[in-house]
Amino acid sequence: MNINNSPIGIFDSGLGGLTVYKEIRKILPHENIIYFGDTMRVPYGNKSPQTIKTFAAQITDFLVHKGVKMIVVACNTVCSNAIDVVKRHAVGIEVIGVIEPGVRKAIELSRNKKIIVIGTRATINSKAYSSFIKKIYPKANVVEVACPLFVSLVEEGFVNNEVSYMVADRYLGSYSKKGYDTLILGCTHYPLLKKTIKKVLASTNIVDSSVACAFSVKKILEEKRMINTSKKEGISKFYVSDRPQNFVELSYRLAGVKICKIDIKRF
Amino acid sequence: MNINNSPIGIFDSGLGGLTVYKEIRKILPHENIIYFGDTMRVPYGNKSPQTIKTFAAQITDFLVHKGVKMIVVACNTVCSNAIDVVKRHAVGIEVIGVIEPGVRKAIELSRNKKIIVIGTRATINSKAYSSFIKKIYPKANVVEVACPLFVSLVEEGFVNNEVSYMVADRYLGSYSKKGYDTLILGCTHYPLLKKTIKKVLASTNIVDSSVACAFSVKKILEEKRMINTSKKEGISKFYVSDRPQNFVELSYRLAGVKICKIDIKRF
Repeated sequence: MNINNSPIGIFDSGLGGLTVYKEIRKILPHENIIYFGDTMRVPYGNKSPQTIKTFAAQITDFLVHKGVKMIVVACNTVCSNAIDVVKRHAVGIEVIGVIEPGVRKAIELSRNKKIIVIGTRATINSKAYSSFIKKIYPKANVVEVACPLFVSLVEEGFVNNEVSYMVADRYLGSYSKKGYDTLILGCTHYPLLKKTIKKVLASTNIVDSSVACAFSVKKILEEKRMINTSKKEGISKFYVSDRPQNFVELSYRLAGVKICKIDIKRF
Repeated sequence: MNINNSPIGIFDSGLGGLTVYKEIRKILPHENIIYFGDTMRVPYGNKSPQTIKTFAAQITDFLVHKGVKMIVVACNTVCSNAIDVVKRHAVGIEVIGVIEPGVRKAIELSRNKKIIVIGTRATINSKAYSSFIKKIYPKANVVEVACPLFVSLVEEGFVNNEVSYMVADRYLGSYSKKGYDTLILGCTHYPLLKKTIKKVLASTNIVDSSVACAFSVKKILEEKRMINTSKKEGISKFYVSDRPQNFVELSYRLAGVKICKIDIKRF
């Protein structure tokens, strides 16, 4: 079998990674995709690095077993705490995260290099974003802010209403007049709260890593000559660790993703 | 060894069960207690019955192995979806849940028997409360309302502020003038939001199952002659499945519980 026909594996703690899935599907319509959402153990953002590493290893083994040609870690919490584990378990397979593409996009956009990064507690505690930003632009002025309630707001459908605005204002209001011209959405759930965040930080550029990540995926597949050259529409297969029907409904309602094939994979 | 000296086992998905722990500790100061909080997999309220049963079996086996004389299921989601599993895995050990004591208290308090029950989605979907209320008072008028964001609000410290009020008002505001005179807090996290709920439903009695549950525990230990007759202060030992230090801090900040002994138990 030609490896180019093999699927791209994408995973997240839950449905946030669908924002990445959508962008990839949009620019790579002929690729086959396997998506895994760990709905039995979501959210990851308040868990310890050790626990996150354990989960990441299990999911990577599962995707490798499914024969993926590339793994997209569409979860910032995993990227910032366990990307080394994913790479170790995916020998010979390309691994792409969401941090690098997002950071490069932010540095390109920002004029004054004053950048806010928002994410889950585990992502912010890891300092993965600020370290990487400093590595490629040492003079950058970076502030990292944990917004731990955002994932639950999204998963419960409290999106772009008064409650989500008030929570966003508590987390971010004090940065509105401090001259940060760019903000990175350091969690794949957060693009679903983009309008709300924009209301709090009106004059700030918002970088959605999912778009930047999808372009990286395409670029690497092209460079490695691994693009699926089939003319057929790519197949998408979803796996979750709990409540598949609920996932199908929320995916459509919150992310506009229609799921046809879904199965349970428990660990 | 005298079984009366054996500990009481209490478990919850996270720190909500501490509201039950505190009440038991208050009226049974000489009992030894083992508390387990499943911080690696919290919250339970949006998981499937099958998953909840799996977790309940694992935790019960752990507590039985620790030699407990009684198991208090201080989690409404487990009580309403997996109490049969707990009983099956705890052969010869008393098992007490939070539903029955809360319901009996509510029926005693309510004049018009118009009762609201609030809980997680899994608790409400199970209809465990309404079935049990109808069983002991068939003419009762019961409405069950899922408040899925409440657990996250508590776990993230959004307690009794404007955000929690607004969320409570969305879930419960429409019941304020419908004549329900009694509300059961069908989740052990919810007593921490009691003031907020009271603000939305000012003229409603609020039943906190944790108090009622603690009295049941005492009554059964007395009836079975299993009270610890030692004059020494009882020992409390805590286990969590992730981030013990965080649990210690939150326990003190949110529930006023000082934890001295804590260990990790992973599944």
